[in-house]
Amino acid sequence: MASGEFDRILGENARYARTFDRSALTAAPLTGVAIVTCMDARIDVEDALGLRVGDAHIIRNAGALASADVIRSLLVSQQLLGTREVIVIGHTRCGLHGADEAALRGKVADSTGTDTDLHFGAFDDLDAMVRAQVETLRGQPALLDTPVSGLVYEVETGRLRAVA
Amino acid sequence: MASGEFDRILGENARYARTFDRSALTAAPLTGVAIVTCMDARIDVEDALGLRVGDAHIIRNAGALASADVIRSLLVSQQLLGTREVIVIGHTRCGLHGADEAALRGKVADSTGTDTDLHFGAFDDLDAMVRAQVETLRGQPALLDTPVSGLVYEVETGRLRAVA
Repeated sequence: MASGEFDRILGENARYARTFDRSALTAAPLTGVAIVTCMDARIDVEDALGLRVGDAHIIRNAGALASADVIRSLLVSQQLLGTREVIVIGHTRCGLHGADEAALRGKVADSTGTDTDLHFGAFDDLDAMVRAQVETLRGQPALLDTPVSGLVYEVETGRLRAVA
Repeated sequence: MASGEFDRILGENARYARTFDRSALTAAPLTGVAIVTCMDARIDVEDALGLRVGDAHIIRNAGALASADVIRSLLVSQQLLGTREVIVIGHTRCGLHGADEAALRGKVADSTGTDTDLHFGAFDDLDAMVRAQVETLRGQPALLDTPVSGLVYEVETGRLRAVA
């Protein structure tokens, strides 16, 4: 199953491991923060937020949605590894911004022959979407009563702005 | 809801944005790869894999599990943004490795007063866990028939090794 990109990644990792010096870090994030953001390739979370290796849990999916899997991850983060703050970060020019759910289901059917009734998470208003994820997390009774903030990352400028 | 860490992150981001030069990137990942890995704070995905901003989708949750939300994210990644390869990366010393599901549910109940029947994703055999996630993704009829590989990242050494 290997590809050229897979082989390149393993080669780059061998270079990384040669000078690796982070073996003393433990699993608990040093800042006590868990980030929830999008999988988007243009967001280098550590660089954009000034985080170092070991600083924060970073949870990512399509759209930065507060899904059941994100809530599971935050429960593990809080109960096993002691984080006490959540920051949700949506971003401009997200693929799901203005996406057409029916068209996406059609693409899946056309390319794989599989019908799906999945909701992909398309949204129309970025700031409102981020606020809704923050509200979802604040409303989870199983999560600790900790700060939950919402930010938008602008892929055009690299800048964060607070929306919740 | 702001904290000292939140303010520090916004300050660091202002420094980042001052020299930001990635505004020309589009949403489609340049390598065509989607990474699925753990939220663990010790994994700097870009550094460890030799990826640059814009190269790859990075999906992260507690344990690198192939959850329904990961499958949703991969469908968006493939159908909207053209990725054609998946690499699943588990890691050593994961908080969920050998974790006790009942004890975790007890911690949630003790700290929040909320009973949950959630399965947190604890596992006993790291390599087998990664292989199982790879098999889950390979078996999804709605995903494209693309390479799916499995790696283990060693937080002690920074090294990746292939397991599937």
